[in-house]
Amino acid sequence: MHVHAQAEISKTGRQSASDLYAEYASIRDRTAQLIAPLSTEDCCVHSLPDASPVKWHLGHIAWFFETFVLSPYEPAFKPFHPAFRSMFSSYNAEGETHPDPKRGLFTRPSLSVIQDYCGSVDERLQRLLHSPPYDDEMLYALTVLGLNHEQQHQELMLTDIKHLLSQNPLEPSYQLPGQQLPATPTVMDWRDFEGGIVEIGYAGQGFCYDNESPRHKEYVEPYRLASRLVTNGDYLQFVEAGGYRDPGVWLSEGWDWLRAHNHSHPLYWHRKGNEWQEFTLMGMQPLNADLPVVHVSYYEADAYARWAGARLPTEAEWENAAWRQQIDGNFAENGRFHPFASPRNSMGLAQLYGDVWEWTQSSYSPYPGYSPAKANASKPMSTVWDEAVGEYNSRSMVNQYVLRGGSCITPLKRIRPSFRNFFPAETCWQFSGIRLARDAR
Amino acid sequence: MHVHAQAEISKTGRQSASDLYAEYASIRDRTAQLIAPLSTEDCCVHSLPDASPVKWHLGHIAWFFETFVLSPYEPAFKPFHPAFRSMFSSYNAEGETHPDPKRGLFTRPSLSVIQDYCGSVDERLQRLLHSPPYDDEMLYALTVLGLNHEQQHQELMLTDIKHLLSQNPLEPSYQLPGQQLPATPTVMDWRDFEGGIVEIGYAGQGFCYDNESPRHKEYVEPYRLASRLVTNGDYLQFVEAGGYRDPGVWLSEGWDWLRAHNHSHPLYWHRKGNEWQEFTLMGMQPLNADLPVVHVSYYEADAYARWAGARLPTEAEWENAAWRQQIDGNFAENGRFHPFASPRNSMGLAQLYGDVWEWTQSSYSPYPGYSPAKANASKPMSTVWDEAVGEYNSRSMVNQYVLRGGSCITPLKRIRPSFRNFFPAETCWQFSGIRLARDAR
Amino acid sequence: MHVHAQAEISKTGRQSASDLYAEYASIRDRTAQLIAPLSTEDCCVHSLPDASPVKWHLGHIAWFFETFVLSPYEPAFKPFHPAFRSMFSSYNAEGETHPDPKRGLFTRPSLSVIQDYCGSVDERLQRLLHSPPYDDEMLYALTVLGLNHEQQHQELMLTDIKHLLSQNPLEPSYQLPGQQLPATPTVMDWRDFEGGIVEIGYAGQGFCYDNESPRHKEYVEPYRLASRLVTNGDYLQFVEAGGYRDPGVWLSEGWDWLRAHNHSHPLYWHRKGNEWQEFTLMGMQPLNADLPVVHVSYYEADAYARWAGARLPTEAEWENAAWRQQIDGNFAENGRFHPFASPRNSMGLAQLYGDVWEWTQSSYSPYPGYSPAKANASKPMSTVWDEAVGEYNSRSMVNQYVLRGGSCITPLKRIRPSFRNFFPAETCWQFSGIRLARDAR
Amino acid sequence: MHVHAQAEISKTGRQSASDLYAEYASIRDRTAQLIAPLSTEDCCVHSLPDASPVKWHLGHIAWFFETFVLSPYEPAFKPFHPAFRSMFSSYNAEGETHPDPKRGLFTRPSLSVIQDYCGSVDERLQRLLHSPPYDDEMLYALTVLGLNHEQQHQELMLTDIKHLLSQNPLEPSYQLPGQQLPATPTVMDWRDFEGGIVEIGYAGQGFCYDNESPRHKEYVEPYRLASRLVTNGDYLQFVEAGGYRDPGVWLSEGWDWLRAHNHSHPLYWHRKGNEWQEFTLMGMQPLNADLPVVHVSYYEADAYARWAGARLPTEAEWENAAWRQQIDGNFAENGRFHPFASPRNSMGLAQLYGDVWEWTQSSYSPYPGYSPAKANASKPMSTVWDEAVGEYNSRSMVNQYVLRGGSCITPLKRIRPSFRNFFPAETCWQFSGIRLARDAR
Repeated sequence: MHVHAQAEISKTGRQSASDLYAEYASIRDRTAQLIAPLSTEDCCVHSLPDASPVKWHLGHIAWFFETFVLSPYEPAFKPFHPAFRSMFSSYNAEGETHPDPKRGLFTRPSLSVIQDYCGSVDERLQRLLHSPPYDDEMLYALTVLGLNHEQQHQELMLTDIKHLLSQNPLEPSYQLPGQQLPATPTVMDWRDFEGGIVEIGYAGQGFCYDNESPRHKEYVEPYRLASRLVTNGDYLQFVEAGGYRDPGVWLSEGWDWLRAHNHSHPLYWHRKGNEWQEFTLMGMQPLNADLPVVHVSYYEADAYARWAGARLPTEAEWENAAWRQQIDGNFAENGRFHPFASPRNSMGLAQLYGDVWEWTQSSYSPYPGYSPAKANASKPMSTVWDEAVGEYNSRSMVNQYVLRGGSCITPLKRIRPSFRNFFPAETCWQFSGIRLARDAR
Repeated sequence: MHVHAQAEISKTGRQSASDLYAEYASIRDRTAQLIAPLSTEDCCVHSLPDASPVKWHLGHIAWFFETFVLSPYEPAFKPFHPAFRSMFSSYNAEGETHPDPKRGLFTRPSLSVIQDYCGSVDERLQRLLHSPPYDDEMLYALTVLGLNHEQQHQELMLTDIKHLLSQNPLEPSYQLPGQQLPATPTVMDWRDFEGGIVEIGYAGQGFCYDNESPRHKEYVEPYRLASRLVTNGDYLQFVEAGGYRDPGVWLSEGWDWLRAHNHSHPLYWHRKGNEWQEFTLMGMQPLNADLPVVHVSYYEADAYARWAGARLPTEAEWENAAWRQQIDGNFAENGRFHPFASPRNSMGLAQLYGDVWEWTQSSYSPYPGYSPAKANASKPMSTVWDEAVGEYNSRSMVNQYVLRGGSCITPLKRIRPSFRNFFPAETCWQFSGIRLARDAR
Repeated sequence: MHVHAQAEISKTGRQSASDLYAEYASIRDRTAQLIAPLSTEDCCVHSLPDASPVKWHLGHIAWFFETFVLSPYEPAFKPFHPAFRSMFSSYNAEGETHPDPKRGLFTRPSLSVIQDYCGSVDERLQRLLHSPPYDDEMLYALTVLGLNHEQQHQELMLTDIKHLLSQNPLEPSYQLPGQQLPATPTVMDWRDFEGGIVEIGYAGQGFCYDNESPRHKEYVEPYRLASRLVTNGDYLQFVEAGGYRDPGVWLSEGWDWLRAHNHSHPLYWHRKGNEWQEFTLMGMQPLNADLPVVHVSYYEADAYARWAGARLPTEAEWENAAWRQQIDGNFAENGRFHPFASPRNSMGLAQLYGDVWEWTQSSYSPYPGYSPAKANASKPMSTVWDEAVGEYNSRSMVNQYVLRGGSCITPLKRIRPSFRNFFPAETCWQFSGIRLARDAR
Repeated sequence: MHVHAQAEISKTGRQSASDLYAEYASIRDRTAQLIAPLSTEDCCVHSLPDASPVKWHLGHIAWFFETFVLSPYEPAFKPFHPAFRSMFSSYNAEGETHPDPKRGLFTRPSLSVIQDYCGSVDERLQRLLHSPPYDDEMLYALTVLGLNHEQQHQELMLTDIKHLLSQNPLEPSYQLPGQQLPATPTVMDWRDFEGGIVEIGYAGQGFCYDNESPRHKEYVEPYRLASRLVTNGDYLQFVEAGGYRDPGVWLSEGWDWLRAHNHSHPLYWHRKGNEWQEFTLMGMQPLNADLPVVHVSYYEADAYARWAGARLPTEAEWENAAWRQQIDGNFAENGRFHPFASPRNSMGLAQLYGDVWEWTQSSYSPYPGYSPAKANASKPMSTVWDEAVGEYNSRSMVNQYVLRGGSCITPLKRIRPSFRNFFPAETCWQFSGIRLARDAR
């Protein structure tokens, strides 16, 4: 999922200028905290084509506010640095939406210059929000969009830095391991859902991305969802039963992927002698059988489900269940940045929110009646809005699969029952895991 | 779509042995007719990794009957040639489902030896069908499966040979152009459909693939379908308006595909001076603006629809409309192997069946309640059945898109309203085209 | 080595028209004999990017005579088929010298049409040679060039067809194995050479390629050459001693090559159970320890030599020795198309000519004073000559290594002591082998 | 040219411990000065597979001394950090000689930790040199080898950082441009050399690499060398005459290279509007027609020479001329890191040493009688020596071309008339240029 900030303007609840800037400041603080454990060198490098250096994320966050808020609204706007307008853009010169493939080579500007860039944008935005020239409704909407965009990048910074550190023979830690919460194995039960015509999609007055709309009906057969996530212990059985050597349980394309990359276990697992270890943001740790398996691709999630006599849920099944539960779980605010074990004796669906993004079997496609967010053309600045939110989501709607529920590195505020995350099937470096589903019978 | 022969055994209506063999013989005749215009050299070469030489298709068709019908049922079974059992298999040694990448190098066995192989299988199958040792129900089911499998390969032989001939500077024809049917431009209208809960999926007593089952409910919003296919003339406007140079109308992945391959028009179009031409099975022809555009990828179909202010239909929308119409149209039996112009004044949806496969926006995924076809384990030969139909379809259910309705090279008998064809989004060498859809309102 | 026909015109000894056409006819006969064992399907396919289908070789041989002899000299010249002029050219539209990468897809023209093409060229050439319009010296020179070009392609047809057949699970034979000549192991001795200033390069009055000229001096230290070729038995010791697993004996680039392709023995060796076999033009044969090892790359030749405490000869060392021996050995005329064992008790250097091309350590570069063959510009047709021989050889003079002495599939007439064959270091599908050298001491 | 440190032990002139350490310290200072203008971020990234991050170069220099000097000689040796022994090695686990492809991901250890590593090695080496346990001759030889190795990496640090900075849209400078020396065009004359038997190869008592030995005879025809290097102005004529669009002047492989990478001028040239600019270590500068052309591949050097009716010299021709001139020129000590214009009225061969490495037409191969440097096995530590110098040079002796004379970033001390640098033909990021040669006559 590249940047895909889009909002239904009309739904953006209005806050006072002070409140909005306070939220802005608090999110910026959070970003600063996230990079505090990193060296300038850590911030300069990325280790996957789909990832970005932390420095680039920072510059890109500032670029978004500068381009879509300051540039149209600031009186006598002058960019911080003309070259940054393309260096930190998410569009390249050919109109492709991928960030610049050379961004890992940008040793200049230095991290501290980028921090100055952020500081300058903060200051100018604060001034602007307190004395907007006009049309403050759209100004607020664009700012809220920028904040959601920033929170998305907070999550990506962690996934990207985790992968980078995992490549280092020194096995560095991003943070110290906290006290290990005691965990006891929890039995996986099934929870039944009735089905019929259900409604999914965003319905409130707040912010949402346009891909969550419109709210609409779907017909769902009776189904069951697993009471908790698949654990490392569960998944290890699959590995040890030869799951990675049996083409019969894999999607053909998954089998090709597995063989092309020589995979025999999830991305961050390592076998050292007789012990399994897992690379985490707290460095290399013994594999804890009670924690949810994380960093599996869609192919792995599907193969495991098939092997276990189950399947992945559809997004309608997932969301229909999710509307019944409070949003509560292990999110980024916990600062642990690793999934927790399932609580015992939980009612409903444990770990539905937080911990790991749950792969669904649904490919990422538009909801019936969907049309890409566009501002009301009669309003001022509607062009800016359209450019900011672009055709972004809808242009991604092919060959990607939907994940739901957020993870232990997702800011709680990003998450709604209707929130749709999406990635290609081979994606492993996101915090993605598995909840099983079955037809009811 | 690789081989994906699967059938609901229980639904296989029983025919007499003579009737079944008569059908078998007639389909084999059809295969023989299809290759009659080709030289042995034409039959030996393939020009795309996903295509196969005609010779290999022939051997593979015989292999299917030999492996799944003769081998389990024939008393004192002895293979025609031991090496053919792997040379013509659709599984390679590593359990991957792609045919052998070396199959284009198999100059031996010669075409005539492969024809002997087919003849031997014919003869033995005729003998077997007339005096089956036991369990004739399963024997019949497997034979019917083989016939559907063969018809699929009849279609693929034509797509593969068309691509091969298109690469030749001599611009050879597979057949002579027949008399050109006069065509007059037809206006594209919209037909409205009410939506609500609809049922889709196969429901009868005959043969179907397991991916068409089970019949189930879906909730569909009111929608409109275009009264005819998108024509070359329509598509040419898109090309000439700079459609291939505007990233805004393309899926991001489609834009990457277009640029990586330098596409600026559909696969078989050629610009010669000021004239557009189209390579067909009748050789190079002037581009006829009234004929349906064909050989477009999903990316191109989606981009055109977006540019035209419309979208592709979902498969539920398509099938809901299709149940109301008779199966009738320009199929392989016409022997023209090229789409026709839309008839004027047609009611309903012109060209819904035949002419070109219609891309839907639906990714290929299992229907609710779907389980891969398995024979009843208590019956004899159930293992053979399971092996024959395998986990085939379900193992393809990722990153492919559904096409509906059949084409001018599809045998009429293959087609049902519920029939689901599927290919990756970049596929062009199939006879794929575009029917537009819109939300009703 | 792509086509690299070049000749020193002035050296072309003149023959009578009848003699020349007789030679032409005899070489064409030889070409026809070579393809007699092949099916049309065998002739249509190639299995390596650097190889070509036999059909293409045939068309290309005719193209050469049509383009460089008939086109300039034939009164009222009309090409056999206009499209053939580019289909069978060795230059593509961008001026690159590789044959068309699509040539394996040319199922049309059929083999028989290409044979008609050859027949037409034969007939027209015969007529032309007997009544040339003018300037017969250049006409003769171009014809001789074409004959050398054809003999080169005779050799390539055999290397290409051997590779193609080797890919076939049926392990087909190009010809029946003749009676196996009894062979007894021969000890490898060393023959000493004095060194000092030596002369190499072509010096006679006959045909040679321009890369063999000018004859010039080189200073050579005293050296020794092995009395016979390295045998399969010798090489097997290297394989079984773990030679393919020890980076220390390989050129770094050779080690990368070996690992990238997973090589653990020469190209056509196969281990079946406990037995080593070798694919030959007589099909799969038990590996004969007394025959010379063949189909090794420069990397393998160099690694073996290093392992054996020796080195490869330079081309000056090789040629200096070769001038002292008669040209005699196992050439294509034997019709065995496989190397023989070294004779016992041979004086001098056994197998110096024929059997296998011997890798030298010399990179392919111009001799001092070399300039690409150009006709005397004052003569008629000099432009044609220059085009025919082009800058061909000199444009190949980078990253290739010289081989000497001819092989069991080389026509005897092609070989001179000064003849330089050249291929990239990774080449295996040529009949290349190893003669060891050492510094004298 | 990867690390290829090799020395003839017996030739290493002995210095006192103090003198040797003083030289060591001065070279280490030089290394520190070279990285002073760089940020930690600049030091962490590399922009070409064949380049390395500056940090890695630093760690690798220390690794060399730690591994080959401290480890065998230091009493109670303990590595600075166990993991560094593989992270900074030039051998990977599979025995391949390329540095670790992941070295660009090593954000840890930080630059300052690597500097501590260097400091620790310095201190321990100083102690060791002043009180060696035994066998000081070999200890000295290994230290001298390490110093030559370090100087090689000093040069590589500059080539690698230049390429990295060239990728940055900010066009950063490594250093300020000094005062521009006034330059006036100099005519290119030809200097004649007699030829005959000449001697080349190292002959003194000091340090040399084993690829420079043994000194030996070669026979050389009379020849001419250009009095100065090819300038930007000369080369621009080639560019503007369409040189990059004419296959006839390129080696076939060079033409393929040019087209695959879409080259139309040397690596660091840029066309901005009507002006040509050149990226240098002083940032982007207008292209100065009087300075030598630099950063051309072998293919470009050969094509230019061919176009100019000349050729590249052989290494024997170059060295034969070089023995007659004093080593003097624009080397790294000047601190300008860019070639100078040719002086006017110079006798002999201007710019023979320094400015740019001069491509020769000679492929990199062993001299007659060459054997990879090995210590006398009877001496202690001979195994260490052999491991340090390995089979390094000889294992590179394929598909590379020799360059001579050093460049403006080469430390003067590295250069000898016999010094052989070598790189693959497509190499551009080294400071490589062109001196023309011709046959005399």
